[in-house]
Amino acid sequence: MRIYADNAATTKMSQTAIDAMLPYLAEAYGNPSSLYALGQEAKDALERARETVAGIVNAAPREITFTSGGSEADNQAIRSAAALGAAAGKKHIISDAIEHHAVLHTLKKLEKEGFEVTLLPVGRDGLVRAEDVAAAIREDTCLVTVMYANNEIGTVQPIRAIGAICREKGVLFHTDAVQAVGHLPIDVAADNIDMLSASAHKFHGPKGVGFLYAKKGVRLVNLIEGGAQERGKRAGTENVAGIVAMAAALKEAAERMDETAAKLTALRDTLIAGLSAIPHAALNGDPAKRLPSNVNFCFEGIEGESLLLLLDDKGVCASSGSACTSGSLDPSHVLLAIGRPHDVAHGSLRLSLGDDATPEQIAYLIEAVKDVVEKLRGFSPVWRDLCAGKTPFLL
Amino acid sequence: MRIYADNAATTKMSQTAIDAMLPYLAEAYGNPSSLYALGQEAKDALERARETVAGIVNAAPREITFTSGGSEADNQAIRSAAALGAAAGKKHIISDAIEHHAVLHTLKKLEKEGFEVTLLPVGRDGLVRAEDVAAAIREDTCLVTVMYANNEIGTVQPIRAIGAICREKGVLFHTDAVQAVGHLPIDVAADNIDMLSASAHKFHGPKGVGFLYAKKGVRLVNLIEGGAQERGKRAGTENVAGIVAMAAALKEAAERMDETAAKLTALRDTLIAGLSAIPHAALNGDPAKRLPSNVNFCFEGIEGESLLLLLDDKGVCASSGSACTSGSLDPSHVLLAIGRPHDVAHGSLRLSLGDDATPEQIAYLIEAVKDVVEKLRGFSPVWRDLCAGKTPFLL
Repeated sequence: MRIYADNAATTKMSQTAIDAMLPYLAEAYGNPSSLYALGQEAKDALERARETVAGIVNAAPREITFTSGGSEADNQAIRSAAALGAAAGKKHIISDAIEHHAVLHTLKKLEKEGFEVTLLPVGRDGLVRAEDVAAAIREDTCLVTVMYANNEIGTVQPIRAIGAICREKGVLFHTDAVQAVGHLPIDVAADNIDMLSASAHKFHGPKGVGFLYAKKGVRLVNLIEGGAQERGKRAGTENVAGIVAMAAALKEAAERMDETAAKLTALRDTLIAGLSAIPHAALNGDPAKRLPSNVNFCFEGIEGESLLLLLDDKGVCASSGSACTSGSLDPSHVLLAIGRPHDVAHGSLRLSLGDDATPEQIAYLIEAVKDVVEKLRGFSPVWRDLCAGKTPFLL
Repeated sequence: MRIYADNAATTKMSQTAIDAMLPYLAEAYGNPSSLYALGQEAKDALERARETVAGIVNAAPREITFTSGGSEADNQAIRSAAALGAAAGKKHIISDAIEHHAVLHTLKKLEKEGFEVTLLPVGRDGLVRAEDVAAAIREDTCLVTVMYANNEIGTVQPIRAIGAICREKGVLFHTDAVQAVGHLPIDVAADNIDMLSASAHKFHGPKGVGFLYAKKGVRLVNLIEGGAQERGKRAGTENVAGIVAMAAALKEAAERMDETAAKLTALRDTLIAGLSAIPHAALNGDPAKRLPSNVNFCFEGIEGESLLLLLDDKGVCASSGSACTSGSLDPSHVLLAIGRPHDVAHGSLRLSLGDDATPEQIAYLIEAVKDVVEKLRGFSPVWRDLCAGKTPFLL
């Protein structure tokens, strides 16, 4: 059996998205800025895509800016809030310890430019507390940025409550919703969101395209200067085919969302129950407030990378944290933030289910992981020391 | 007959590029940062594409950074040189009056940040003089940025000579080669280029992907912070399918370059000769030092936008300058810079031929433009005033 269980890293493009894309490669290939019919056809497709995307998150079309992906959207959102803040003499930003690096590294750069950043801790459940956000807001706070759902442990944050606090205090609120868009129902108005980032390849759209929602009145700064595309806020000829495919993928995901979420939640919980039976294993993240597709465990005494390679041999594609930081020897900042010890954090496994997951796949995953963990522990001096009582078990 | 003569705005994707792209949408769709085979397959494709692209411009693979397009590459190149300059106390940049807005607007922003920018004039031929560059270089000059070939009037600049001057004086040299890559033979070593920007959709690759060449030792600053992709210099999951398609399109263009250039140069010159027979018409840009595909004329007494709409009715897709600024009421900054009066600059037409152009298409284009110009002049009060001697002819 071959199982792609790394849908948080990227997804296979849906046939719907591919079918939507193809006509814009070599037929309706005009430049949307061109006046003639072929250009206007591309322009119309672009604006229809904008309406589709806007409608799904309950925004107005002109509040949507197309970008090259989630990282660009995160960078642009945070840079924009920082510029607005600096102009008003407000240079304090609130975020949390388990954000994606697109957020954390941008904040790090802003610190070097004179901003002060408060990174809120999260609980062992991986949750940011709305009351912590409220307590951290100061007179000079210009932005709160908290992700909708975590890319590693799947925790879904109390976005609506955080948004309400920010709205009440008059502070801009951005959410990196890269893992949530297309998977959870998002309503930027009801959730009190001022800016939101999304990436198409996380919901069966193409890589290299995403969008930034910015509420009317929130002035964006350009990361890319040049032509007047995207209302002058993002220069460069628009990736029409990619944008059209993103809208088609998102529409399909939104239509099936309730059904997919219900199915995946049941499968996820079966998988969690199965893996919990492995000795000295622990679920990472909140058991209920998590993405329907996300399962993340720590297994004591083993090393994540070996786990992945042996699972690959068994036909299972999985991850040991964020794809963006693989290759790094440091353990996940997310697992450290929820209190996992350094050694334990190294033995983590993320399984992120696809929409097409089946009970048979779940059964196979449980057996495969059990086998591989057992095998690796057989080789592991760390595990032998643990079993011999030379070091204490932590899980 | 339908003729797409706006290949400087964008091109139709080649079948070769589409065929190269498709497997990476829903088969080899892994995230290149993932450890398992599906991820490594994507990573390998990415690195093969990098080798292909690097080889064609005579760079090393690690000198190539993939971006979302030419504008992003221009912005990153100029921002990087500015950061290096600022760190060394050098805040003077040299460019010219006919650059693309991705360059000019970035420079405008740098001026607000304390940089001084010298925009060299161009001759009536649209050429930047290498000796002007040499004369403008100061102790505090950190960058010279001159485009390889102009997107409106097609002028090909003396890049090798400018590069040699910069190299000799120890000043970084960037060239926006968006119109040149895939169309002219480029050798970054022989041309003394330190940084070069390119865009796939200008050479029959997809929209939304491009690359930045930066010579080894030139430290890039990130426009997009986040994951460690592109050696940490450009965060965000790589647009694998788009990048692979870009490399395939560029390889094909490079293989056919000499043949295509020879054919188009002959067709271009026939078209120029034909349009020159229209009364009070003038070629814009140098007659010989221009892109093989580019024809750009001013026709006195008419308005560019009407010209385009009537040509569209005749099945001809053409442009009145840069697609990126269409919709603007200002005349082209390029045409003003080569000395065209404001009124005349409004009556411009750019025809940019496709690789598949034929003598029959050229004959049709000549007749179509003649017809349309004649018809519009029949309606035009400006033209009647000119003919009645109330105002002097300028062309």
